[in-house]
Amino acid sequence: MAAALALARRGLGNTWPNPAVGCVLVRDGQVVGRGWTQPGGRPHAEAEALARAGEAARGATAYVTLEPCSHWGRTPPCCDALIRAGVRRVVVATGDPDPRVDGRGLQRLRDAGVIVELGLGGAAARADNAGFARRITRGLPLVTLKLATTLDGRIATSTGESKWITGPEARRAAHAIRASHDAILVGSGTVLADDPELTCRIPGMARVPLARVVADSRLRTPIASRLVTTAREMPTWIATRTGQKPASLAPYQAAGVDILTVRRERRGLDLAALLGALAQRGVTRVMAEGGAGLAAALLRAGLVQRLAWFHAPGIIGGDGLPAVQPLPLDLLSAMPRFRRVASRPVGQDWLTELVHEETSDQCSPGS
Amino acid sequence: MAAALALARRGLGNTWPNPAVGCVLVRDGQVVGRGWTQPGGRPHAEAEALARAGEAARGATAYVTLEPCSHWGRTPPCCDALIRAGVRRVVVATGDPDPRVDGRGLQRLRDAGVIVELGLGGAAARADNAGFARRITRGLPLVTLKLATTLDGRIATSTGESKWITGPEARRAAHAIRASHDAILVGSGTVLADDPELTCRIPGMARVPLARVVADSRLRTPIASRLVTTAREMPTWIATRTGQKPASLAPYQAAGVDILTVRRERRGLDLAALLGALAQRGVTRVMAEGGAGLAAALLRAGLVQRLAWFHAPGIIGGDGLPAVQPLPLDLLSAMPRFRRVASRPVGQDWLTELVHEETSDQCSPGS
Repeated sequence: MAAALALARRGLGNTWPNPAVGCVLVRDGQVVGRGWTQPGGRPHAEAEALARAGEAARGATAYVTLEPCSHWGRTPPCCDALIRAGVRRVVVATGDPDPRVDGRGLQRLRDAGVIVELGLGGAAARADNAGFARRITRGLPLVTLKLATTLDGRIATSTGESKWITGPEARRAAHAIRASHDAILVGSGTVLADDPELTCRIPGMARVPLARVVADSRLRTPIASRLVTTAREMPTWIATRTGQKPASLAPYQAAGVDILTVRRERRGLDLAALLGALAQRGVTRVMAEGGAGLAAALLRAGLVQRLAWFHAPGIIGGDGLPAVQPLPLDLLSAMPRFRRVASRPVGQDWLTELVHEETSDQCSPGS
Repeated sequence: MAAALALARRGLGNTWPNPAVGCVLVRDGQVVGRGWTQPGGRPHAEAEALARAGEAARGATAYVTLEPCSHWGRTPPCCDALIRAGVRRVVVATGDPDPRVDGRGLQRLRDAGVIVELGLGGAAARADNAGFARRITRGLPLVTLKLATTLDGRIATSTGESKWITGPEARRAAHAIRASHDAILVGSGTVLADDPELTCRIPGMARVPLARVVADSRLRTPIASRLVTTAREMPTWIATRTGQKPASLAPYQAAGVDILTVRRERRGLDLAALLGALAQRGVTRVMAEGGAGLAAALLRAGLVQRLAWFHAPGIIGGDGLPAVQPLPLDLLSAMPRFRRVASRPVGQDWLTELVHEETSDQCSPGS
């Protein structure tokens, strides 16, 4: 199952709106087939593994990270394929929360005389597909907030100098995290300050295009920005408040930008509504990359499930730009708290990964 | 030598102004004696180990973390004791920078026909005795700055609530770090805000008293504060500017507080002079515990060699109290940079230990 989980992770960011699944077929102690959900969400992992195993699948055990599907979607049901191939036993990490499946896959296998076991590696599988499950059950994508700060939580000097606080290894690692998400979300302030491209520049890492999303209630994103000028090459969505004049939207649309309209709240866009709109478009995993205003707004609204925090080994001091704007917070007991699940050095910096306390049971890898 | 280094570390914080040394005597593959510098700095490690070995020391190899002394101090020279006991070979991790020794110990052993080897475990030994060496060579103690903050570098909410950001395990670990230092330094603002006792409350950890030092140019420390009212039980030193009226000092002195006078600079006390005064009193290792103004002043003056940073897994946001006041810093290239040497979870929090880049070669444990 560990091997199947590792295969499944290859698909993260590439399979939306589908889950990223891994499948390993074992017969007589030998691996006879391996598969994972292919870019775009199909073929499914089981179909891939069965195709590789061919006749060797007969009598084999299938280790699958998610309950095999029992319904006809864009592909035939994987249950039927497993049964037809003569698989004797199916070990499933976790059930599929999709109401079209939700236990029916397991039942169908059992009805056909296949031995079914559920639960091996379940926590890890649920953590990996937390975005898929959250979209299905809550209508929202999983949000990973990524920050890169000094030890004292600063992202720039008081004069705005921010290049570079973390080193090249950390920046590359951040690109790898992007690759495991479906969309990147930034505030318009970040576009104005950094004019980022928000691509995933890792050589040799083929993937479905990453959707780039700007939360921009006042349409401040410049038409000449890199995001807008590359909108025909990579999906670029600008979420703005309802009621913008069509004439204001036209230049963006002409450049290939997709406009999402979202209700405005007192302090900015209704971010739950914005994320809901992304989920409707199939997005299961969003990486929020700043700036400090967006980070605060997401935290304030309780919309952050995971943190990926790069700390650089330097100190800027109290006049530096904070990573997170005022929430604001009066009582310490109201502080957003997370649980550390991993930490590793990345060049001179280090990355700490945390999950939100309330969601830790479904989000903690390997727990 | 690893065993000798571990023994040596037991003495850190307890041996000043002497170094914390460890000694292991081995004969025929058996440990026949172990010793470490005793509280107060004597007996020395070698004397302890020889006393335990007795006749078994004859023909043995001594592993010593620092060059054995060759001069009469408050104890007879350890070199002579090793020679007299018939030790055949002495393996020394690093030389003693004390000009009264500085190679003379090794020479004296060689002259007596003892085989001498230098360098095994040298980097670790130098890191452990960096405070001792810094006092001898620079007339300053080693400074460890300890901070406990949220992920975003805050030590309290905007309303000043700070209890507790880190958990009880982290607070206990901070007490253990105190125990390995000779003195604790705080600013008067911390005394006013927290009225701390600054003791080392670890049950069963006997030690020489920790000196408690307040940097207080304007004599703001209340006479009724815990520090002042316990000044007869534990050394309490207040460093204030030169030229204070004797009448202002008298109540502190009557309570048992020792007054150090230090030149005032534009932004506060001359901290290099303050640390120099501590070194003159024999202090080799200082733990600076805040507040944010003292932390900034020490960093600004380049006086911090090590950081012990506890991060709690929460976020307060941009209106929270910063851990470090403005340095201030205009250019990112001027940012104080450190090198991470260790990190470990402590309860729900984690401790990252760093050394200043310029001093890393002499301060990095185990490198």
